[in-house]
Amino acid sequence: MPNAMSRRTALVHRVPARHPGDAAAVAALFDSGAMRPEEVVAILGKTEGNGCVNDFTRAYAVEALSWMLAARLGSTPEAVQARVALVMSGGTEGGLSPHFLVFGVREATAPSGPPALALGTGFTPELPPEALGRLAQVRATAAAVREAMDQAGIADPADVHYVQVKCPLLTNERIAAAKARGATVSTEDTYHSMGLSRGASALGVALALGEVAEAVLEEAAIGADWSLFSGRASCSAGIELLRGEVVVMGNSPAWGGDLAIAHAVMQDAIDLPAVQQALRGAGLAPGGGQLPPAEAARLVAVLAKAEPASTGRIRGRRHIMWDDSDINATRHARALVGGVIAAAVGRTDLFVSGGAEHQGPDGGGPVAVIARRGV
Amino acid sequence: MPNAMSRRTALVHRVPARHPGDAAAVAALFDSGAMRPEEVVAILGKTEGNGCVNDFTRAYAVEALSWMLAARLGSTPEAVQARVALVMSGGTEGGLSPHFLVFGVREATAPSGPPALALGTGFTPELPPEALGRLAQVRATAAAVREAMDQAGIADPADVHYVQVKCPLLTNERIAAAKARGATVSTEDTYHSMGLSRGASALGVALALGEVAEAVLEEAAIGADWSLFSGRASCSAGIELLRGEVVVMGNSPAWGGDLAIAHAVMQDAIDLPAVQQALRGAGLAPGGGQLPPAEAARLVAVLAKAEPASTGRIRGRRHIMWDDSDINATRHARALVGGVIAAAVGRTDLFVSGGAEHQGPDGGGPVAVIARRGV
Amino acid sequence: MPNAMSRRTALVHRVPARHPGDAAAVAALFDSGAMRPEEVVAILGKTEGNGCVNDFTRAYAVEALSWMLAARLGSTPEAVQARVALVMSGGTEGGLSPHFLVFGVREATAPSGPPALALGTGFTPELPPEALGRLAQVRATAAAVREAMDQAGIADPADVHYVQVKCPLLTNERIAAAKARGATVSTEDTYHSMGLSRGASALGVALALGEVAEAVLEEAAIGADWSLFSGRASCSAGIELLRGEVVVMGNSPAWGGDLAIAHAVMQDAIDLPAVQQALRGAGLAPGGGQLPPAEAARLVAVLAKAEPASTGRIRGRRHIMWDDSDINATRHARALVGGVIAAAVGRTDLFVSGGAEHQGPDGGGPVAVIARRGV
Amino acid sequence: MPNAMSRRTALVHRVPARHPGDAAAVAALFDSGAMRPEEVVAILGKTEGNGCVNDFTRAYAVEALSWMLAARLGSTPEAVQARVALVMSGGTEGGLSPHFLVFGVREATAPSGPPALALGTGFTPELPPEALGRLAQVRATAAAVREAMDQAGIADPADVHYVQVKCPLLTNERIAAAKARGATVSTEDTYHSMGLSRGASALGVALALGEVAEAVLEEAAIGADWSLFSGRASCSAGIELLRGEVVVMGNSPAWGGDLAIAHAVMQDAIDLPAVQQALRGAGLAPGGGQLPPAEAARLVAVLAKAEPASTGRIRGRRHIMWDDSDINATRHARALVGGVIAAAVGRTDLFVSGGAEHQGPDGGGPVAVIARRGV
Repeated sequence: MPNAMSRRTALVHRVPARHPGDAAAVAALFDSGAMRPEEVVAILGKTEGNGCVNDFTRAYAVEALSWMLAARLGSTPEAVQARVALVMSGGTEGGLSPHFLVFGVREATAPSGPPALALGTGFTPELPPEALGRLAQVRATAAAVREAMDQAGIADPADVHYVQVKCPLLTNERIAAAKARGATVSTEDTYHSMGLSRGASALGVALALGEVAEAVLEEAAIGADWSLFSGRASCSAGIELLRGEVVVMGNSPAWGGDLAIAHAVMQDAIDLPAVQQALRGAGLAPGGGQLPPAEAARLVAVLAKAEPASTGRIRGRRHIMWDDSDINATRHARALVGGVIAAAVGRTDLFVSGGAEHQGPDGGGPVAVIARRGV
Repeated sequence: MPNAMSRRTALVHRVPARHPGDAAAVAALFDSGAMRPEEVVAILGKTEGNGCVNDFTRAYAVEALSWMLAARLGSTPEAVQARVALVMSGGTEGGLSPHFLVFGVREATAPSGPPALALGTGFTPELPPEALGRLAQVRATAAAVREAMDQAGIADPADVHYVQVKCPLLTNERIAAAKARGATVSTEDTYHSMGLSRGASALGVALALGEVAEAVLEEAAIGADWSLFSGRASCSAGIELLRGEVVVMGNSPAWGGDLAIAHAVMQDAIDLPAVQQALRGAGLAPGGGQLPPAEAARLVAVLAKAEPASTGRIRGRRHIMWDDSDINATRHARALVGGVIAAAVGRTDLFVSGGAEHQGPDGGGPVAVIARRGV
Repeated sequence: MPNAMSRRTALVHRVPARHPGDAAAVAALFDSGAMRPEEVVAILGKTEGNGCVNDFTRAYAVEALSWMLAARLGSTPEAVQARVALVMSGGTEGGLSPHFLVFGVREATAPSGPPALALGTGFTPELPPEALGRLAQVRATAAAVREAMDQAGIADPADVHYVQVKCPLLTNERIAAAKARGATVSTEDTYHSMGLSRGASALGVALALGEVAEAVLEEAAIGADWSLFSGRASCSAGIELLRGEVVVMGNSPAWGGDLAIAHAVMQDAIDLPAVQQALRGAGLAPGGGQLPPAEAARLVAVLAKAEPASTGRIRGRRHIMWDDSDINATRHARALVGGVIAAAVGRTDLFVSGGAEHQGPDGGGPVAVIARRGV
Repeated sequence: MPNAMSRRTALVHRVPARHPGDAAAVAALFDSGAMRPEEVVAILGKTEGNGCVNDFTRAYAVEALSWMLAARLGSTPEAVQARVALVMSGGTEGGLSPHFLVFGVREATAPSGPPALALGTGFTPELPPEALGRLAQVRATAAAVREAMDQAGIADPADVHYVQVKCPLLTNERIAAAKARGATVSTEDTYHSMGLSRGASALGVALALGEVAEAVLEEAAIGADWSLFSGRASCSAGIELLRGEVVVMGNSPAWGGDLAIAHAVMQDAIDLPAVQQALRGAGLAPGGGQLPPAEAARLVAVLAKAEPASTGRIRGRRHIMWDDSDINATRHARALVGGVIAAAVGRTDLFVSGGAEHQGPDGGGPVAVIARRGV
């Protein structure tokens, strides 16, 4: 049973970015005393690149944040990146507004109270190339999720509402190394390996949270059987890491503060009712449609996944996302889901990211809401 | 006073397009007896091009519809285009679904009843190049709107809910011709002339509907003073015509049938409450957010304008639409507004078009709803 | 032995297009008497779309040309399309200029003289879905090439310099039909089927021309072993046909007139010497670099294939074509090859098309030149 | 007369970039001893962004290079940027290969010999907003060019072959500041101010080099009269500076080493003969078209400007660069000019940049070549 005197507090701040290399508003959190650099455990960012292969705004933001944090901590960018999960999602299509979500943990004494937002991190071991996109990655990720739940003091998977995973991908060098050892890889298409790695990670989350039973999980389902998914996973693949990194968010009585998290699963891209369900779950009253200003003021973050339906249809009507050779399909999807969520909440600084393999149903995806408790 | 025995009926059918040259679903309306080719007065279409300069899907659709109608009517494409307003809006970004809205007028006897959807068309004289983007175009368009209202049997401007205008633009040849006569033009930038012509047309609608007083209208306001606008105009410029063409939609006791129209003005791109207001105006009950299926089944058409806020912000938060050199700003805006309206109505075959100069406030725009009366 | 009195003459005219639906300059050829509509056997066009999936400029041009020709011939668009090969290649990136190449055959008496440009057409039977991208398509195409050579009066494969093939692709419907019969298909990815169909067609050309020996041809090589290719094939896949259509161009003593054709194979995208070799082969003197005006005046057409090197490098230096998620790789490639050829010939109305599977070596492609004989 | 004992040597190294933040190959120059960090005076880079408004690859590269140099020099990024001209040009369309050109000056003794590549830098004072795009900027830039020529030891403007200028632009804040002082600005469109600033800078170069006479220079010509231009200026506008920075490159007897520079002016985008003229000027023999390998091995750098012809035509044939709403016109132009120059030199790591206002004739631009002297 948690000791009230030892309750940790999760801190979440949403700040704007004027450009991808702009760490000023994050630094201002430290200057204002809202947070201390040592407290930061993760920064999630929406940057304004294309969110696809040649989106260098993500790396640019990671570098800028790392240098700023290193200077504040008397550390190095490498040490910062080893300790803090820096997850950048490119693409602010439609009305989405570039911003950073800064997550921290304050070890200070918090009074007893209702369960509050809890954060935990976990890591897989380094994943060899031959593990990526396969059951080995699924199981390693599941273990890391359980480790992160432990750290967060969350025992019941039902109390987990969002799991951010950053996972490796295959490069030509890594594929060659595997082959030199006589090993095979799940794909030789490096771009495709991103989707497989995200998918295997998401199925790892699903496994840890009991959303998918281990018995039904076969390797051939990864990247193929979209009926298997997690309603709480959000995964991104990055070239800069060799292990999987997991941030679990949930509610726990071991944590204090006035933040809480909830989630729902959008069944398709225009599932406004699911967004409203997540809002209500986090203690916000959507009213007749869009959050009234007083409610919106308590909204701290919305995190969602977007992906075009593979059927080429939304509720039976054709969409053109897959056929558009000028705008990548994920860019259309982010713009659309961003519009639907903005309709619900009345603001546009939303963490809507693409690449939703096994993260929610085909064409839909998880949506999580962090809100401040009402008074 | 309208004679019940002579009440006309407005017909509106929404049909999908498999590609821009696909007139098959429109033809199927004739085959099924839903409509007769002679009854068609206008077809509005969303085609899947980029909605910008080199969007040839609009012309392709106009040609395909013209040829099909000409074959059905024993006429020529040119004669069809002279009689039927064919207004194509390019751009189905996000989740928008390519479709045609086919408007017809049936002269048959309709029983007396409540005011119903009324349609009227009007035309300006040929507009010389030197009139475009100037007060002369504003006044000519206002006269054409009044003519179309007369034809529709609408006396009170408050009963007008949507005015579609198709207007000319300047080409290098037309500019040269004007100069050869010693006349000046409002701009020598042909792309810019599209915005000025749309803007002058919209102000013409505003003038006719009493939204802007003639006394305050100065030529310098066109394309500059965004506080002046119509909440019911939707204008598009096309190279293929030299006059302005106007379709007025409203409600009138002189018309029968079970359709009605309403509108509201979105104050910004994420103004879900305005969309819901328009739905309610047309007799639909939005419920807690998204139209329930039974209500959605009575929704016939949504027509809206989208344009990025010139401030670069939506409710104070930065958007990147104007800064994106890979995706035109209007494409972002259509995707966003499409998402907001889809959130409200639960479907994606929405007529959301860009280029909203003087059509609604900066960053917002008119939204009109046509619905079938409940039983 | 050809009788001088019966020598046919190949006609080739290059005309500009103001937009994809602009058949006026082709029609003007008939009005001026340069050609009769009955003489037209093929029109190749560069249209200004993106050359990728949602490029509707190709279909728009085909429709516009068909309607125009049907009106001139007192025929129907369908009949025109059955008789005349209408091959549109989308994408005029860089400086490429939209244009049509109109090929005709005049049966009139031509005096004896040197071998001249000869045209022949051939067709495969309807190809069932299970044949596409497989050896069956390779062999059927090879047979059609031989048939077209016969028709053109070309006995020696060395006299063939360019073979245009238009081939079918897989659609979801066609795949389903094959499966319903218990047949398998080469791929279930419809976009991928375009490349496989082009590749199998190109290998069919290679087989007919002796560029690849039947003994080494295995099904697994299609779309995989890029060392096998034709240096004279140019293939495009289209949804509108079920058989393969072949146009062979070469030189033959059975033909008269003052046109001749030659080709060379660009080893990579910047292989200017290969372009110059093709020019010399057609009787033009490149001089110190760019064709002098007098020589350029005798240049009638340049036809080339462009494709990014799969290695991601050009002569050891990285290119970014495959990594650019904003501009499709084939668009970069056309712009680049268009620049290289324009450097050689001093004009920009060049038929440079993408999608060069088995059409020239990896990163390179065939380039053919048609020129008027000097006096 | 230059003293052999005091002859400086210009160093130029061309190194590849694996991504915009990759300073490793530049650092390797220091590790190998090819250059010392203290010797660096300028780095010009081609980065793989879109080269337009939201191209953050330029800033990312500047940051990465600054941090690396600061670490090597025991300095700060700010101090590095104050001393070294870091000029990034975004956009590697077509086959262009991302790379950096590192320019250094070695003060070591060089033996007497023929005139060699000479480098000089100059700066304008801080330019107030009201000076930008106006004659004040033209004159200030001309003075900075003269200062840089002095520093480079170049007395005769004919010995100058390339002038790189980095110049400020207007921001909303700067415009407001000017207005607050009662001053006017040349434009209130911040994007347009980039072109005006580049144009005024180029005219400043033209003035200093005697390419345009002061008497004919009127303010109204800036950004309007394209008959006035420099054949040696290459200008880029950046938000990060308030003064103009100038790097002059020419040949001078006061410099030693085996490098030389030459230039020519491309009259249009496909002017291969002009490229060959510049190659010959730098001592390379183009042979029959493309530089033979032995000659190409002596080629150190090619620097050129690209811009679509405002007429919409290249030698009378329509180009679609201005009409393409999916790909910015400057992207087409870089791809095209890159292809033409690659045809001439047989390599793709070429510094081809866009935005050529008053830098060469309409549709053309300067091309400069740095080569190593043959033996």
